[in-house]
Amino acid sequence: MSKLSLGLDYGTNSVRGLAVDVATGEEVATAVFNYPSGESGILLDPNDPHLARQRPSDYLEGFVAVVRELGQTIDLTQGVGIGVDTTGSSPMPVAADNTALGSDPRFWDNLAAQVWLWKDHTGHDEAAEITAQANEGKFPYLAKCGGTYSSEWFWSKMLHCLRVAPEVIESCSSWVEICDWIPATLCGIDNPKNVKRSRCAAGHKAMFEEQWGGLPSAAFLNLLDPRLAAMRPKLYDEVHASDEIAGRLSQRFAEKTGLRAGIPVAVGAFDAHFGAVASGANPGTIVKIMGTSTCDCMVHPLDDPLPDVPGMCGIVRGSILPGFYGLEAGQSAVGDIFAWVSRFTSLPHDVLTRDAEASLPGQSGLLVMDWHNGNRTILVDPFLTGMVVGLTLHSKPGELYRACIEATAYGSLKIIDRMEEYGVEVERVVACGGIADKSPLAMQIYADVFNRPVFIARSSQTCALGSAIFGAVVAGEYPDTLSAQAKMAGLKDVVYLPKPENVAIYSELYRLYNSLHDSFGVKDHSESLYHVMRKLNEIREKTRG
Amino acid sequence: MSKLSLGLDYGTNSVRGLAVDVATGEEVATAVFNYPSGESGILLDPNDPHLARQRPSDYLEGFVAVVRELGQTIDLTQGVGIGVDTTGSSPMPVAADNTALGSDPRFWDNLAAQVWLWKDHTGHDEAAEITAQANEGKFPYLAKCGGTYSSEWFWSKMLHCLRVAPEVIESCSSWVEICDWIPATLCGIDNPKNVKRSRCAAGHKAMFEEQWGGLPSAAFLNLLDPRLAAMRPKLYDEVHASDEIAGRLSQRFAEKTGLRAGIPVAVGAFDAHFGAVASGANPGTIVKIMGTSTCDCMVHPLDDPLPDVPGMCGIVRGSILPGFYGLEAGQSAVGDIFAWVSRFTSLPHDVLTRDAEASLPGQSGLLVMDWHNGNRTILVDPFLTGMVVGLTLHSKPGELYRACIEATAYGSLKIIDRMEEYGVEVERVVACGGIADKSPLAMQIYADVFNRPVFIARSSQTCALGSAIFGAVVAGEYPDTLSAQAKMAGLKDVVYLPKPENVAIYSELYRLYNSLHDSFGVKDHSESLYHVMRKLNEIREKTRG
Repeated sequence: MSKLSLGLDYGTNSVRGLAVDVATGEEVATAVFNYPSGESGILLDPNDPHLARQRPSDYLEGFVAVVRELGQTIDLTQGVGIGVDTTGSSPMPVAADNTALGSDPRFWDNLAAQVWLWKDHTGHDEAAEITAQANEGKFPYLAKCGGTYSSEWFWSKMLHCLRVAPEVIESCSSWVEICDWIPATLCGIDNPKNVKRSRCAAGHKAMFEEQWGGLPSAAFLNLLDPRLAAMRPKLYDEVHASDEIAGRLSQRFAEKTGLRAGIPVAVGAFDAHFGAVASGANPGTIVKIMGTSTCDCMVHPLDDPLPDVPGMCGIVRGSILPGFYGLEAGQSAVGDIFAWVSRFTSLPHDVLTRDAEASLPGQSGLLVMDWHNGNRTILVDPFLTGMVVGLTLHSKPGELYRACIEATAYGSLKIIDRMEEYGVEVERVVACGGIADKSPLAMQIYADVFNRPVFIARSSQTCALGSAIFGAVVAGEYPDTLSAQAKMAGLKDVVYLPKPENVAIYSELYRLYNSLHDSFGVKDHSESLYHVMRKLNEIREKTRG
Repeated sequence: MSKLSLGLDYGTNSVRGLAVDVATGEEVATAVFNYPSGESGILLDPNDPHLARQRPSDYLEGFVAVVRELGQTIDLTQGVGIGVDTTGSSPMPVAADNTALGSDPRFWDNLAAQVWLWKDHTGHDEAAEITAQANEGKFPYLAKCGGTYSSEWFWSKMLHCLRVAPEVIESCSSWVEICDWIPATLCGIDNPKNVKRSRCAAGHKAMFEEQWGGLPSAAFLNLLDPRLAAMRPKLYDEVHASDEIAGRLSQRFAEKTGLRAGIPVAVGAFDAHFGAVASGANPGTIVKIMGTSTCDCMVHPLDDPLPDVPGMCGIVRGSILPGFYGLEAGQSAVGDIFAWVSRFTSLPHDVLTRDAEASLPGQSGLLVMDWHNGNRTILVDPFLTGMVVGLTLHSKPGELYRACIEATAYGSLKIIDRMEEYGVEVERVVACGGIADKSPLAMQIYADVFNRPVFIARSSQTCALGSAIFGAVVAGEYPDTLSAQAKMAGLKDVVYLPKPENVAIYSELYRLYNSLHDSFGVKDHSESLYHVMRKLNEIREKTRG
């Protein structure tokens, strides 16, 4: 009888459970539970569009529901380990017994006591304050997260909470990311001090780094607010990779579900990082998790010390694969841009795709900058906007659609180039997510622009599969994550190889993209752009003729 | 019984006749005749998309037809004078008796012997040759026409004819613009030497200028082709303004129509210039003839000597109003850009207009460069292309529509600024043509961007009315053109006044337009564009908040 690992993937609106054969990676059962609270699981404030919170109890209810549903297909006693990934940074205040402060009847109606969902932007002023303070005081803390602290991250949220709901901070015993709180709670851990904190969450969002002594210093926090410095001892000094055990499943959750009590639960992490593992993240392989935006994940061996790579969203030891630096980068809009073209032209994706396929590289004369939602990597600049150059009276929607796909490929190549500039070689690309599965057009363009082969992850639910891989590791089914990954992760048969004639054209277009990128995006950069429209015309004529 | 002047406006596909009361400018009758030959009056070559020719006989047939039709409404014996305007440069070869060579049975099937319509581009190589030769030899001839000779113009066409159909050049006695040939033929002039040549056509298209001795020198033409130099003596040394009589209506055309023989016919000119006169062209008033593209006409007193204004399409003494320099500029796409937005978004103009009206100045954050069909004035660069900056995932079709209107206004303001820089003051704007009549939105944006009042010409057929004004002048009904214009031309009651709050926003946006204009359009210009997207965001936030 085969052994199964359970991967739990806590998304923005629902939690997915996946039961995976630990020997083969075969996905034998799946179940989804939509969070019952708020609007599609999100607590909103009609007076503040920046606010997005969640009920901690939804996660526990969701765990029980999806596992029970899996139990309709599989024998739950075959379960040998559990992995958990979540959105992030999504922190929450907890009481002295590690229960959610928001579940305490006294705080039930207090939105500040609930989970501060990753996309809660109420702390935007505090984020700017943190960035300014780090820069003014020449603190090193932003060196590994692109130079700008985000309103989506841990400290912005806690600092904002302290300003608007000091009673929550006064009443809590600690703040915990949900990727840490869920495994701990499943294992019955009843003291925040005993919660194993994820390297991934701590390093990417809370500026934790061994080389500067863990979390940012009390001196720094004190400059922001003495009450924030006072919280530091209530947090943590140590972090853990996901090949470590967070705890063992408690009797309580075993009884509620039918799983065996005592099976190990892995230290949690953020969804994209587990998705990267399940897509085959490895030295030399960049994983692109493609949806409305992208998350780009790369690893680099810890024994080959890495300088700070400017513009990355994060560089954290062991955050993706134990034993490797995890590098996270991203594009703030990808699928969202394609959807915008569809809305803007009132044409469905299939029509746009067909027309885009009919237009060969360079033939439209169009060049787009993919900054419709700002630029996350490498410029880290939310104020940049989208641009189209090369329009004529004959420009067509399908041509813009293609040029937008190309633009996101150039934006992605900027990330690859930046990594290689700092010694992280990128030999191949694995894409996963909806666009990777559904758009051969986009994948071929990516291969041609990158001049590298593009592979597609086998699973269509890579995050949950990644969780299951770590569940198998902590269950002792594999000696380490790499061996588990080798057996359980995988690629589809299809591979997109660069076509030399397209590579040549795209390398010319990419030079023009770079001119615009630096002219509009880099401070104090100036160059003549007189050649840009001329060159686009020239390429158009050449490729048409 | 009131006296009537007849204006004949020879367009691309048809000729319009207009009977106008010489005392009041009232338009009492109108008639249109579609040219019977070719496709909508144009002879095409299926193997060469650049070719566009016309049958000279269509013009004469059209004259008879429209005058007879006018005769159904008016008493033709009331006609006291005739004016004629045409497209141009539309030259044709003529025989020794001034008949059309193309009407000679030996040449009937020879397309090179017909009229070379303004939009015939078969001479594109020859145009480049002429530009190169003028620049290399440091000849002055391009100083007054923007520095680049066009394939649409007289010499490109004759030189190309000489290369591809030398038999036409060998058999002809001269080449004549149709704006000269039609009046001469109506008057029975039977020798090309006696055809009065229009200042307008000669100066704007054939590089005629008194200060360099009339037409380009034989030495220059010889460098292009000795056979072209040999044609020079068969052309002309003298040119005439349209307040001069080209001749008197012949018995033949009087009998065919019912007009009185002997009434004077004015020297012809190009349509837009007569349209400008009928729209009230005057010192201080720029006239914008707005359609798919625009023609911008301005006058400046001859007694206030004018330097060469770089980038103008032409600066010609007396070409618009006798006694004034005529300055012609233009935008290569205006209505065409709005039509492109409609096609691109699959939305009709009325929906786009309604949505554009709902978005206030600056609120979309969009900035467009109106170069979808290159730039005619002031950069004279067909290789420039359209551009959109400031796109977000929320950008909407109506916002792009508005930004495109704004862009054509900025492009137009560049023309005004260039004129003022060289001492030609522009105090007010008169617009005529379809967009002026139909789009209050566009006209208000123009007033706000220009920070000048925008008036609308009274007539919806200003070119034909302009012809009638010159018919009245040569009939002796007025002592000069200005007096005739004062009585017969006029404006609508509506006037678009600049709104100070919009002027302030557009002046900020225009600065950004200028940065992009120079960065992409001016050789060796470089400046940082880092501020552009930021500033657009800032204006957007300010105008929304």
